[in-house]
Order: sequence, then C-alpha cells, then structure tokens
Amino acid sequence: MVDGVGERTKRVVVPELEDILYDEHKVLDHGFVRVIDYMGSDSSIVQAARVSYGKGTKQVSQDAALIGYLMRNAHTSPFEMCEIKLHVKLPIFVARQWVRHRTASINECSARYSVVENEFYVPEVDKVAEQSTNNAQGRGEPLSPDVARGIIDIFKDNSESMYSCYESMLDRGLAREIARMNLTLNCYTHWYWKVDLHNLLRFIMLRISSGAQYELREYAATILEIVRKWVPMVHEAFTEYCLESKMLSRSALDVIRKLLKGEEVTREDAGMSKREWNELMSVLYPEECVEV
Amino acid sequence: MVDGVGERTKRVVVPELEDILYDEHKVLDHGFVRVIDYMGSDSSIVQAARVSYGKGTKQVSQDAALIGYLMRNAHTSPFEMCEIKLHVKLPIFVARQWVRHRTASINECSARYSVVENEFYVPEVDKVAEQSTNNAQGRGEPLSPDVARGIIDIFKDNSESMYSCYESMLDRGLAREIARMNLTLNCYTHWYWKVDLHNLLRFIMLRISSGAQYELREYAATILEIVRKWVPMVHEAFTEYCLESKMLSRSALDVIRKLLKGEEVTREDAGMSKREWNELMSVLYPEECVEV
Amino acid sequence: MVDGVGERTKRVVVPELEDILYDEHKVLDHGFVRVIDYMGSDSSIVQAARVSYGKGTKQVSQDAALIGYLMRNAHTSPFEMCEIKLHVKLPIFVARQWVRHRTASINECSARYSVVENEFYVPEVDKVAEQSTNNAQGRGEPLSPDVARGIIDIFKDNSESMYSCYESMLDRGLAREIARMNLTLNCYTHWYWKVDLHNLLRFIMLRISSGAQYELREYAATILEIVRKWVPMVHEAFTEYCLESKMLSRSALDVIRKLLKGEEVTREDAGMSKREWNELMSVLYPEECVEV
Amino acid sequence: MVDGVGERTKRVVVPELEDILYDEHKVLDHGFVRVIDYMGSDSSIVQAARVSYGKGTKQVSQDAALIGYLMRNAHTSPFEMCEIKLHVKLPIFVARQWVRHRTASINECSARYSVVENEFYVPEVDKVAEQSTNNAQGRGEPLSPDVARGIIDIFKDNSESMYSCYESMLDRGLAREIARMNLTLNCYTHWYWKVDLHNLLRFIMLRISSGAQYELREYAATILEIVRKWVPMVHEAFTEYCLESKMLSRSALDVIRKLLKGEEVTREDAGMSKREWNELMSVLYPEECVEV
Repeated sequence: MVDGVGERTKRVVVPELEDILYDEHKVLDHGFVRVIDYMGSDSSIVQAARVSYGKGTKQVSQDAALIGYLMRNAHTSPFEMCEIKLHVKLPIFVARQWVRHRTASINECSARYSVVENEFYVPEVDKVAEQSTNNAQGRGEPLSPDVARGIIDIFKDNSESMYSCYESMLDRGLAREIARMNLTLNCYTHWYWKVDLHNLLRFIMLRISSGAQYELREYAATILEIVRKWVPMVHEAFTEYCLESKMLSRSALDVIRKLLKGEEVTREDAGMSKREWNELMSVLYPEECVEV
Repeated sequence: MVDGVGERTKRVVVPELEDILYDEHKVLDHGFVRVIDYMGSDSSIVQAARVSYGKGTKQVSQDAALIGYLMRNAHTSPFEMCEIKLHVKLPIFVARQWVRHRTASINECSARYSVVENEFYVPEVDKVAEQSTNNAQGRGEPLSPDVARGIIDIFKDNSESMYSCYESMLDRGLAREIARMNLTLNCYTHWYWKVDLHNLLRFIMLRISSGAQYELREYAATILEIVRKWVPMVHEAFTEYCLESKMLSRSALDVIRKLLKGEEVTREDAGMSKREWNELMSVLYPEECVEV
Repeated sequence: MVDGVGERTKRVVVPELEDILYDEHKVLDHGFVRVIDYMGSDSSIVQAARVSYGKGTKQVSQDAALIGYLMRNAHTSPFEMCEIKLHVKLPIFVARQWVRHRTASINECSARYSVVENEFYVPEVDKVAEQSTNNAQGRGEPLSPDVARGIIDIFKDNSESMYSCYESMLDRGLAREIARMNLTLNCYTHWYWKVDLHNLLRFIMLRISSGAQYELREYAATILEIVRKWVPMVHEAFTEYCLESKMLSRSALDVIRKLLKGEEVTREDAGMSKREWNELMSVLYPEECVEV
Repeated sequence: MVDGVGERTKRVVVPELEDILYDEHKVLDHGFVRVIDYMGSDSSIVQAARVSYGKGTKQVSQDAALIGYLMRNAHTSPFEMCEIKLHVKLPIFVARQWVRHRTASINECSARYSVVENEFYVPEVDKVAEQSTNNAQGRGEPLSPDVARGIIDIFKDNSESMYSCYESMLDRGLAREIARMNLTLNCYTHWYWKVDLHNLLRFIMLRISSGAQYELREYAATILEIVRKWVPMVHEAFTEYCLESKMLSRSALDVIRKLLKGEEVTREDAGMSKREWNELMSVLYPEECVEV
C-alpha cells in the first residue's frame, strides 16, 4: 500500500489486501470481483483458536502449523472469524448457482428499482462446447470454430434484440418489474456479497472443481487469488488439505492397503463401480490414463 | 381423507392436509404449488412449547390461547417444530426473489442436466401495468388494454423465438449449460422447497404484502391457504398478530396518546415524514383517504 | 482516537468505535464485553441499499432517512453488511441463553483444553428476588436484605467448595473434560462472538426486554451502547422503530379506531384476554395504572 | 409395526422407524433419545435428486447407487429433504457441546419456568480416566478403580448437596431463574431437537469420532442406529464414504504414489509432522502400530 494512504485504525490490517482494495478483477467478458471491505487476517484465526484451546495449545508454537491443524481436523469455527465483502458483477445464470450458498449476505441491484444495463455474457469461441457424453451436467469438447462463431452470433443478436424490446416496453410506460422478464439469462447483474472465510472456502472448493460450470469456476479462481493475498497461511493449508486432497472411501482404502502389501486387486474384488475405480486409479497413478 | 387410503402411521396426522396432498394448486398461467410432505400440526407447537415452559404453563389450558401467546410474544422456536415440503413451478424471475429466503432447503430442476420445458409466463391483460409513480419498485395502474395486448404479444413472440433458438442450439450439439442462457426470465422452472413453519410464515408475511411483486404474492396467497388447512390455530394467530397487525413507531404511539386525550396533533408536531404520517392516518382512519 | 495510533487502512473507519477498541466494558461482577474488530458503518448500509435500489432511490437524499426507511419496512439485508466481533466474559447460565441465537460465530474457551478460572457470578443484594407471581419465567420483588445476604453466602460457599473439589480432582489426575462437570452454572466462561448488525439488533431487541433474565439484559444494554457509538443513525432508527415501538394486533387497532371515534369499548367487546387488554391500556394511557 | 396401529396417511412411511417411535433409547445413566416425528425416507432423497438432475439421470437406475453417488460427490441438498425430531435427555455439559450445531431447531425445558429434576450424570468406574498426555482435549487411561470410586463419590455428594441447596432456596421464595445457577454441570436437562438428515449426518460424523467427548459420542452412536433404521441406504453410503473414509492430503497422496512405485519415503521427504505421518501410517498399515 502506498504509504500515508487511508485513515488510521487499531484493527488488524493486511497490507497485501489493502493494495487491491476496490480494484476490479476482470472475470469473463464484462464481469468483475472487487474487495470492498474485510475483517481479520491469519492472525485472527490463531487468536480465536487460542481462545478455544487455551493454554493447552501453547506447544503448537507456530501459527501456520496451528492453522494446518485446524484445517486438517475440520475445526472450522475459527475460520468463521474472518469476513470479507465483495462487489461482484456476473451473468444472471451464474448468479442463480451462486445464491445456492445460503450462509452469506447479499444486496443485489434490483431490476424493480433500476433499469438493467445493456450488457450480456457471450462466451469465447473455445468455450462454446458440446454436451459432454460422460458427464450429464457438463460440457465436452469445443465445437468447431465455425459452428461456435455461428452460435455466438445468435447469442449476440438475441441479447440485443431482447434488450431493445425491453427498452421499448419501458418507453411505453410498462413497469420495470414486468419488463425485465423479457431479458435473457446471460444478462449481467451485480451485488454485494459478504461471507465469512469458512463459508468462502466451501464456496471455492465446490465451485472451482471440474464439475462446476466454467463460468462460475472463473469467479471461484479469481476469489482464490484474493484469499491468497488476504490469508496466505490459510491459502497454503487449504491447498494441502482441501483443494489437492482426496477423500478416499472405505473400499478405496482397502484397495490401497492390499496394493501396498503387493497383492493384486481387481475392480470386482473391490466392489467398486467403474467410475469410482477409474477415479481411484487416476489418483494413485496420475501419469497413466487407466480406463476400465 | 377417503377412509382406508394410505398407510398407517403413529405420527401426527392432519386430515385436512392429507386431503390435498400432491394436488396441484394452480398459480399464474402455468405454475402450481403442491404439498408433497409435512411434519407436525397445531398440537406439535403446543407440545414443544410445553417442553420449554413446563409445568409453569399448565394454567394456559387452551391450545389456541397458548399459540396466540407464542405468536404475540415472538416466541418463535416452537413454530420451527413443524415442517412442510412443497413442489412449486414458477417463472425464473419469481424464483430469483424467492430464493432470497435462505433458511429453507431447495432442489431445483437443473438446466445443466435436463432440457428446459417450453413454458413461459405471460401476464393477463389487467396485470400489464405502468411503472408506479409513488413506489419506485412497484407497478401502478393497468395500461390501456390495447397497449397491454401489444406487450403481451411481444412477450409471447420473444419467449417462443428464444426457445426455438435454444432448441436449435441443442440440435447443433451445444451443451445444455450454455444453451440455456438464451432463454428469457419468464421461463418456468420447478423445485422442491422444504421449510419450517416459522420461516414459512415470515416468507408469507413479506411476500403477501402490497410491496411485493404481484406474481410472487400469488404464490404466497396460495401457500397461506395451505397453512390454514394444515395448522388452523396458527393461521388464526398469524392473522391477528401479524397479517392484520401494525408496528407503530415511538412517534406514532405519541400521536395516538395525544389524540386520545383530545389534543390536536399536526405532522410537524409529530416529526414524521409525509409518507409515515399518511400511513398512520390510513391505519387510524381507514374509511377516510387522508393525504397530506 | 489519539492521532497517529494504529496502521493505515483504506477501509471505512469509525473513530468513536476505534476509541473504545479492546476496552473492557464491565458487566455484572466479573464479566465484560470488549470490541475486538468491526467492519462497516452507517455509510455501509446506505451503500448496500443503494446497490439494491439503485438510481430509483436518489431522491432519498439523506442517509438517516434512508436508514429509517429500511428499518421501518423490514428491509433487513443492508444491515447484514456490517459485522462486529466481541470478546465476552459471562456466567455459563447466561451463555446457555445467549447461544440460542444461532446466526453468529463463536469460539469459546474450552474446559477440555484449559483449566477453568476460579470466578463465579454472585448477584448483588437487590437482585436476589422472589419468584414472580404473574410471570412464570421471571423474578418479582427483592427478598428482604437478610434473606438475600443468606442466599448470597450460600452461592459463594458452594461455588468455592465446588471449585476446590474440581482442583483436587485435577490434582488426582482426572481428565479436565470430566472434572469440569463438578462446577456450578454461575461459573464464568468467555468467548469470541462475531455477528452481523441485523442479527445483533435482534439479539438486543429480544434480550433487553423486560421478559429476559436480568443478567442477560445487562449484556444487551452494554452492547446497545456500543451500537450507539458504532452506527449512530442505526441506533436512532432502532430506538424509534423497534425498541420503543409496539406491534398492535388487529383487535388492538380496532379498539383504537373506536376510541378515536369517541365510542366506548370494553374488553369483552374487543374479545381480548385480560393480559392483552392491560398491555394495550398501558401503551395507550401510560400515566395511568389500569388493571382489569 | 403392529398392524392396524395408528392413523392413515398418504405420506411416505418407514415401518422400521414407526416400530420404535416414541421409544426411549437409554444413553448414559439417566439420558435417552426418543424419535418423536420424522419426514421422508431413502426414496425422498432419490425423488429430490431426480428433480434436480432430471431425465439425464434415468440411467442411474438403482436408488442405492444414486444415493452413493450423491454422498461421494458432496451433493448434499437432497439429504436436507428428510427431517427428524428427537426428544433427548442429556447432561448440561453435553448440551453445551451439542448446541454448537446451529442448523437445527431446539425447544429446551426452561429452568426459569420449571423446577429442575433431581438427576445428575455420574460416570461409570471405567470411564473415570486421567487427562490424556498426547491429546490436550481428551481423556487417557482409566484411573485405578479405588481413585475412580472416590471421585464418583465426590460427584454424587456434590450433586446432591447442590440440589438440596437449590431446593431450600426455592423454599425461601427465591426465583427459579436465580436458584438454578447453584446446580452443577452434570445436571440433566431435556429438549426437542429437530434437524434435517444432512445436518444430522454432520453431527454424527463430528461427534462419533474419537476426538469427541465420550458422553456425547454415546448419543451420536445411538442416533446412528436410528439412522440405520430410518434410511438404510443412506446409512450404508455414509459408512462407506464418510465414517470409514479418510481425507488424504496432497502430501499423503504423494507418499502413497511413491510407495506404490516401490520407492522409499521418509517422514522428512514427505515434509509431514510426526502426528500426520503417524496417522497416515496407521491408515495404510492398520495392523502395525507404527510410532515415529
């Protein structure tokens, strides 16, 4: 942070986050994430944990080790002691997924009060992909550039044409709360979103995963970078124990134990579905592409 | 309930609600509300309250009086002891408002997994209204039938034309999760919504009010009827102490006290805004239309 | 705040709250409330409301008026945009009531990890009161000073004697998590409690009322003073529209309307219980003590 | 369930749970868990999932497989569609841990309204254990039977003596809300506790683990048995993917991959703490007791 900027506070301050306060981090074609306010730091988590665990934890002398311990053992309450407020601009279909995370506070721009802006999400050519064949909810390979460009043109034309009808309805005096329903789901909205760190990490965990929709993953990735600046020790522990960890089932652990003894194990022995078995093999032997 | 229908249970049963279980209660042009499951009755609230308040409440001999007492004094936890699960079909722009009530469980039909149905909300002629002049968020008088019918035609044409583009994108192989963003906000979705009675009453209270959007008010009114069948004593107390009650501010109470003493009071004396003063006068003298 | 103290921040700063940051506000004999951290101010609420209500609200030019409007109309979400973290020391029986407010984050000192301190709440003489005769949950008149002092001595002796057994059990090697169950409920604990402003106001509203237990009311009153320093406009609106307002039922409003027309109304006409009628009369004619 | 008992309902019925409805399942010396009401079954989860995932999931033909898939992939919302209401009698120090699970509804017997019963938890001889040396929060080996019996006698004497003071204070007219603070933390209370299945499973997961206090683990184990009767498919998936699964960190996965290649790995190579390394070894080689 540039010296001398801002007012004085006796609260905990995180200079790396102050540096980017209010900055727009671009996401997709017109979206962004901005940090508006925050409360706490790595040290606030340590402080809260030490209230809980008291003198008995003095031997856990290093803060990073304590944070790792908390993360590893699902002692989640100290992570609730940090709070962040973001200003986010995002397409409505993304907002509809986002809002399923209920333990957060939201103030969204209301299309009953204000006229919606003329901005719509249109994917880039290489994001215009076919329906995935092995994942009912996802997208697979990109469509050919020609087809993709054709689809992009349709999105553009439709968004604009719906918006122009919307405007003309308003011109005829129609109430905003009715007119807005003529808009398409790629229309942008924006909101203030305030959440504690524990619930923010859960949001990132679920929405950065390959099963989530690409457009939402982009927001999750941007927010993960903000977390790295804000609470670097938490970021490190989160990577080690969540993002790059793997929950292994009872059956999967049995398979590993047998393999370590040098025994042969087949999918049938393990009683696992093809999908589970393949997932396990890809965790254990990532350099090979084992498909049963 | 027709005798002999269903299985036997030792749980509390509400025959009036059993009678309409799974029935579609129509809302708007294509929407509905269906009761799928429920837990508890008026008696469950009394039972929970008596656990809390124990022997000391025996003198409150009548269940309805006890429920009234709980409602009047904001003893909300016994109302959480009843639960209901609804299946609701509703336009997306209504779903976006609904989901702001966070203390409920939702499973919504996902447009990533399934192809969206070709159904769109189009308002009736007398609901196509102008922007309200005294309420920034609401609608005012209906537009002239001619203008209204013109707008309705635009809604219909646009919804159908966007849906047909959606279908043709799917035909070209585009992933469902991308194609859906071409749809308009009056498109119908449906979900399972499970909520406890306390939070359901808050939902109704906020969404049946004249400040809420007409389309959502219709759902709230339908659900209020379901509440009347399910927990008639709660319905009565809710009407008395919530729906038809009024929160009067410190200043409003001062005005009333002075009026009862026979004193003259002006808006300026009371230190109230025009809007507050008018609201108070319409509560005290509902048959007159006093506007300052 | 003393000039030059603290680090620089670009976040919103509330000097009146900075002045008392980390200070112990004494409550009861050994308890306290300390502000550890905060996020936001009156202006944050206005900012969030303006995101929601957008350009349409520009005419609500004054921040205090906007905050009053939000409070009056139960537009609660902007108040969630402010957050505070308190360090509180309190007797366990008070903590058990406090924790019923679920929408907050807590890190409590754990008696599994740490040896509990030798501190117990003992009421002052004038707070040692008899069971209320007209309120099943409350206390009535103070007992005579002699009886009260006798009871205080019993509390003191018992607390100390239980604590000394606790210590001797620990000396014999007993696990802390077992030994602690020998302590009495007036034993002090302490915790970090983090909550947003909306939920904080609800806590105050419910716990400052005459129906709440005296010992918890003392904490609520202390926190209300903190709110006054932190967000003075909110404090003002909260007093006007919540603390000193009154919810009047449908029947109560009918009574008032008749009285204003000069009609006679009896309790029987109104169909109200004695308790409700007396409450209404005490609101309308506070200087008289009307008991039916 | 005995044929012909109960009323008829069109709701989903689970005969195995009906059989034990209202029964007291004994826990500790005076505690119990009783099922009072429930909503939903395994089939309700499948139904909710199929609303979300629609026609695209028809190939997942078997319900148990679908439930396993949901559990494995943290698709938690369908599990929220089942609800259960329990009546639980438990010592206050256990209630204090239990209530940290906030996403549940509680009506507790209030010691402001009712006189507390004369019942106190006293551990059995083999549960009177020393402070653990390697776990700051837990208990280790049982104390010698003689010491244990001495401690048990102290608990008994103290509980009774405090209760008798409590009674004599009430006899002198002291308000219940004050007198109760003379009681010890092993005093029993009871409450209605209503929770959805997703949050119930989280409760069991955290409270049945070896890190939780023995007395609470006993309740968690009793409730797990109830879950087994209520939703047997969920119970099976929960065992496979939660109770007997293990979250392996990035570093732990690296160790396993190297071991499977036949490489030697040391704790130092792995960059793991002693505790983590020992935990991993005990997962991989459960029959050996490897301590570094």
